[in-house]
Amino acid sequence: MPKGHLTVLGLGAMGSAIAERLRGSGYAVTVWNRTAAKTGPHVAAGSKAAATVAEAVGAGDVVLVVLLDHESVREHLDPVAAELKGKVVVNLTTTTPNQARATAAWAAEHGIAYLDGAIMAVPDMIGSPGARLLYSGDENAYAIARPALETLGAAEFAGANAGVASLKDMALLAAMDLMLQGYLQAIAMMRTVGASAADTAEETEAWLAAMLPYGKEIAAVVDGGTYDTGGQSVDFDRRGLASLITASREQGVSARLLETHQRLLEELAAAGHGASDWPRIIDRLTIPR
Amino acid sequence: MPKGHLTVLGLGAMGSAIAERLRGSGYAVTVWNRTAAKTGPHVAAGSKAAATVAEAVGAGDVVLVVLLDHESVREHLDPVAAELKGKVVVNLTTTTPNQARATAAWAAEHGIAYLDGAIMAVPDMIGSPGARLLYSGDENAYAIARPALETLGAAEFAGANAGVASLKDMALLAAMDLMLQGYLQAIAMMRTVGASAADTAEETEAWLAAMLPYGKEIAAVVDGGTYDTGGQSVDFDRRGLASLITASREQGVSARLLETHQRLLEELAAAGHGASDWPRIIDRLTIPR
Ligand SMILES: NC(=O)c1ccc[n+]([C@@H]2O[C@H](COP(=O)([O-])OP(=O)(O)OC[C@H]3O[C@@H](n4cnc5c(N)ncnc54)[C@H](OP(=O)(O)O)[C@@H]3O)[C@@H](O)[C@H]2O)c1
Ligand SMILES: NC(=O)c1ccc[n+]([C@@H]2O[C@H](COP(=O)([O-])OP(=O)(O)OC[C@H]3O[C@@H](n4cnc5c(N)ncnc54)[C@H](OP(=O)(O)O)[C@@H]3O)[C@@H](O)[C@H]2O)c1
Repeated sequence: MPKGHLTVLGLGAMGSAIAERLRGSGYAVTVWNRTAAKTGPHVAAGSKAAATVAEAVGAGDVVLVVLLDHESVREHLDPVAAELKGKVVVNLTTTTPNQARATAAWAAEHGIAYLDGAIMAVPDMIGSPGARLLYSGDENAYAIARPALETLGAAEFAGANAGVASLKDMALLAAMDLMLQGYLQAIAMMRTVGASAADTAEETEAWLAAMLPYGKEIAAVVDGGTYDTGGQSVDFDRRGLASLITASREQGVSARLLETHQRLLEELAAAGHGASDWPRIIDRLTIPR
Repeated sequence: MPKGHLTVLGLGAMGSAIAERLRGSGYAVTVWNRTAAKTGPHVAAGSKAAATVAEAVGAGDVVLVVLLDHESVREHLDPVAAELKGKVVVNLTTTTPNQARATAAWAAEHGIAYLDGAIMAVPDMIGSPGARLLYSGDENAYAIARPALETLGAAEFAGANAGVASLKDMALLAAMDLMLQGYLQAIAMMRTVGASAADTAEETEAWLAAMLPYGKEIAAVVDGGTYDTGGQSVDFDRRGLASLITASREQGVSARLLETHQRLLEELAAAGHGASDWPRIIDRLTIPR
């Protein structure tokens, strides 16, 4: 006996993995995709295909949306607002925090219980505990959808502000992005003396793993808010960073990736904060508005 | 009975820790410091103090130099080149790769066996296996000094090019620098919804730890050199990065730290490499000269 009726809109790489996992977990799944041919394998495996979005959302109590972007979501959901009334919509499409909040406001207007999701995984990982999915928005909707969502991977409710799941996703991806740029900078520098990227990556991985806990110290300084703990100062950090930049350039490697940090430190020093703890640069990231 | 005669020039925080560790390991240590008062505790503990650099270098078979910078090293070593002939000099002062190579060339001219070192540790860590010290230059000098150097921490010979130890140090520090900037970016973004830096750092640490192995994949793409493995492309990366930048700005947080990566991708796309694997940006870090 099926556990419940679910609808999946969008059968791209991610939507397909999600629909397949939900069906495999015992849910009655109805799928819709703009290009109808993609529903074939799902129907063969036991899901139902709907010819229209309206038909699809009519078949499920919880509607999971896995389209390309915010625009494609609104293009297909706006016309079926009436049909969605009283249902739970879980939007797993990648959107910005503002887009998530806009869709949440639209849903609230139409009596739709809205949950915005962020998928920190690739399609292959869906269904494994290594897949991490963040949700924010209507907490009641989360309670209803949770059993199904937990079949997709580790599920986490990030708060009632619908933008938070997406923001957290983006914040973590931003940190990863900079870490990966760090790998490239190290590889570029070491290539100049013939080191393979593989060797440098191996060394860098071990080094970064050992240095990861330093994030907690930075956090303590930021949460403290006084920037006078006597740890490494802006001036100290500037000197150290200048050595890195010089070393890189001496080897014929651009230090572009390091220059923003350098400018942030220069701005602080110019503002008279040379003796402050260096994490004070975080304040310069906040644009006054 | 002492294991051998060593000289330590420079008794700042780092030189003191090194001199103390060597004496504690059973070496006969002679120390010199510009400000003579700092030799007091070392003499009290059993080391000898020399009044001049010439006297100090005369007393040791291996001379460890732990001064402030390249200039202070050359200021004090150049006048005693004759006294250093036939001895091993291990320069642990932080220098750039070019400075290390310049001192190595000077040493070779004067018949001095020269080893350039880089200390990846703070003074407190000296003597523990967590301290990592890199050496490059004269391999024979390394063989001679090695037993003493191994008392300071994990010792690694990085190659005959005297600049390599320093370059590797700088490359790893550059990678760490960017990783730490990543922490700050994530903390700044999550602060806008009330998350403490401590909470964000904890989440970020776990996430980065899980993503660290991705460096190996980047390395394989770079070593391959064709940038056509069909992995994430420049165009794909641009779209993803654009979302991060938009999300950050929507929250009132500058995306300055991410913009260099964005410009590198734009340059590649403009050069017709939008379909290439994104790590191709490493080629744009190499300044033609
Ligand atoms: N793949 C990943 O690793 C991953 C990871 C995390 C998050 N995500 C997110 O998951 C979402 C889906 O990604 P994906 O990998 O499944 O992408 P995909 O393979 O490119 O599939 C895109 C899906 O969106 C549909 N679509 C695009 N524009 C549409 C429109 N205007 N109207 C209706 N349908 C439209 C496509 O339908 P057609 O078949 O008709 O083209 C297809 O079903 C994206 O927001 C993505 O950022 C993906
Ligand atoms: N501390 C660390 O965590 C660390 C880590 C890695 C590498 N290092 C490197 O180790 C080296 C020493 O660092 P440190 O922490 O010991 O620095 P420090 O505590 O500031 O001590 C500097 C030392 O250099 C001497 N000095 C400075 N200018 C001089 C000059 N013109 N002539 C002669 N002596 C001079 C000082 O002598 P006076 O006592 O007379 O001022 C003192 O002995 C630096 O290159 C540093 O980058 C340090």
